[in-house]
Amino acid sequence: MKLTILGCYAATPRTMTNPTSQVLEIKNHMFLIDCGEGTQVQLRKHKIRFSKINHIFISHLHGDHFFGLPGLVSTFRLLGREAEMHIYGPKGIKESINLLLKLGNSYTNYNLVFHELTSKDSVLVYEDDKVSVETIPLKHRVYTNGFLFKEKVGSRTLNVEVANSYGIEKCYFQNIKNGKDIILDDGRTIENKELTFDPPIPKSYAFCSDTAYKPDIVPIIKDVDILYHEATFLEEQAAIAPKTRHSTAKEAASIAKQANVGQLILGHYSTRYKSIEPFKVEASEIFEHVLLADDGKEFVF
Amino acid sequence: MKLTILGCYAATPRTMTNPTSQVLEIKNHMFLIDCGEGTQVQLRKHKIRFSKINHIFISHLHGDHFFGLPGLVSTFRLLGREAEMHIYGPKGIKESINLLLKLGNSYTNYNLVFHELTSKDSVLVYEDDKVSVETIPLKHRVYTNGFLFKEKVGSRTLNVEVANSYGIEKCYFQNIKNGKDIILDDGRTIENKELTFDPPIPKSYAFCSDTAYKPDIVPIIKDVDILYHEATFLEEQAAIAPKTRHSTAKEAASIAKQANVGQLILGHYSTRYKSIEPFKVEASEIFEHVLLADDGKEFVF
Repeated sequence: MKLTILGCYAATPRTMTNPTSQVLEIKNHMFLIDCGEGTQVQLRKHKIRFSKINHIFISHLHGDHFFGLPGLVSTFRLLGREAEMHIYGPKGIKESINLLLKLGNSYTNYNLVFHELTSKDSVLVYEDDKVSVETIPLKHRVYTNGFLFKEKVGSRTLNVEVANSYGIEKCYFQNIKNGKDIILDDGRTIENKELTFDPPIPKSYAFCSDTAYKPDIVPIIKDVDILYHEATFLEEQAAIAPKTRHSTAKEAASIAKQANVGQLILGHYSTRYKSIEPFKVEASEIFEHVLLADDGKEFVF
Repeated sequence: MKLTILGCYAATPRTMTNPTSQVLEIKNHMFLIDCGEGTQVQLRKHKIRFSKINHIFISHLHGDHFFGLPGLVSTFRLLGREAEMHIYGPKGIKESINLLLKLGNSYTNYNLVFHELTSKDSVLVYEDDKVSVETIPLKHRVYTNGFLFKEKVGSRTLNVEVANSYGIEKCYFQNIKNGKDIILDDGRTIENKELTFDPPIPKSYAFCSDTAYKPDIVPIIKDVDILYHEATFLEEQAAIAPKTRHSTAKEAASIAKQANVGQLILGHYSTRYKSIEPFKVEASEIFEHVLLADDGKEFVF
C-alpha cells in the first residue's frame, strides 16, 4: 500500500503548496482522493500515469478539494481515454461537471459514471474481490465524507519448499492453492495450512478531511492501520477550529488514540503556519505514532 | 502599457507550461484576461496583487481559459475582498460560477457582477474616461470573443517652462490645463497649444484567442499597436487547424499584416512542439514584427 500526497494544505493553492489531493495505491488500484486545483500538474510531476486512475473519491465540494476535477476530466479526454471513470462525491458533483462540459461543448468520449453520495451514515461505495471502500461521515461546513479503504484477506499461497519435501507432485499444486489438504501415498494427511503461507495481513487506510473533531467516527475507523486526519490548526487556534469546522493537531491525535490506529498522518495545515513541525509535537503528546504529510511525500506501508 | 503572460500554452496545464491567462496593465487598470487552471498560483508567482484586479475578461468557456476562475473567485473571498469584481464572458459563466459557489456553500462576501456576452458583433463591454474594451468575435468550437483594449486620448499637460517664459502667473495654470488660451498683459494671445504638451499617443491591445483564421476581424483590430493572436499550430499541421478551429503561425501573421498592426505576439502553442522558435520563423516570413509569448514573459509598450 502506497500513499502519495499531491497536496495537503488548506484553502488556496500557492507557489509552494497545493490543496488536497492524494493517490492511494492499493491492490493494483490507483485511487485518487480529492482533487484540488492543480492536481493534474501534481500527477504529472509525480509521474503517476493518468490511465491508471479509474476511481476518484471527492470528500466535499469546497474548491480546495474539488476545483481540479473539471480540468482533470477534460485532460483525460484530450489524452484519448476510453475506459470508464468512476467519480464518488456529494450530490451536485454530477450537475457541476456536466454543466462545465456542456458550456465548453466538450463532452467526454469515455464514460463518466457518477456515484453521488447523500447518506449521513457510513455506506459501502466500492467493492471488488480485493478491496472495499466505505464512507466516513464527517462534520464540516458542507456535506462531507471521509473514505475508508480496506484490503480483503487474500488467498493462502503455496509453500513450494514444504510441498517438495513431502514429494508432492506438481499436478496437486493447484489443489493446494485452492485450499485442499493432501493425502500422501503412505496414507498420511498433510493439512493445507502446513503446505501454504498465510496471506499477508490486510491493510486499511482512512482518509478524514475536512472535519471538526468528531468522535462519532471512532467506531468506523477502529484499529485502522493508517489514519490521515486533518489538522488545520494548532491548539493555539483552538477557538477557530470548531467555528470553521476544522480540527487541531491535538484533536486529530485524540481521534487516533481513541480509534487505536497504527499510524496517524496529519495534513490540511492552514497556510498561516510557517512550519508544520509543531503539528507533530502537539499530536505526539497524545498519540505516539505521528507522521506529517507534505506535498510530494510518499508513504509505503 | 504592460502585458504579463501568466500562461500561453494550449489544452492542458503541465509541469512547466500553463494554460491561457494574462494581465494587462493599462491606465492604472489591471485587467485579467482568461483564467486557465493555475492562474491564481501564477499571479502569486509574478507578485501581482490580487486586490488590484477588478475586471476579468473570459474569451470562452473551454477549461484551459476558464477553469482557474472558480478557485480565483474563492480565493478573493478568503483574502477578505470587499470591492466589486466584474466578470465578462460568454453566457453560462454566471450559472457555472454560482453553481460551484452554491455547492460549496461558500458565497462571496464581495459583489460579483457578471456581464454575459451573447452578441456575434463587436460590442463595447467596458468604458471609463481612460480606456474602453470591445469584444472581437472569433471563430472557435464554442462561442468566443477576443478583446480590444484601447486607451483614450489623454489631456494636454502644462508646459511650465513656456508658461514661465511668458511670465504667466500660477493662478492661470488651471485655465491652461483646461484648454484655454491666455491673453497677456501686453494684449498678446498665447495659444493653448503653445503652453501645453501633446498628450501621449493612446495605445491599443487586441487579444485574439482561440480562433480559426478569421479575416473578418481585420477591420476591428485595424492599426492596433499590439496584437496577441493565437498560433496553436505550425504550417505543417495546417490540416488540423481549421478542424479544431485554431490558427497557424502563418495565419496569425497574415491577420497581423492585413490589419497593419504594430507588433504581433504569438501564443497558445500546442504542447506537441518542443520549441516555440519555429513559430517566430514561420510568422516572420509574412510579417516583420513578431514576438513570442512565453509563460512569465513581460512586454512593456
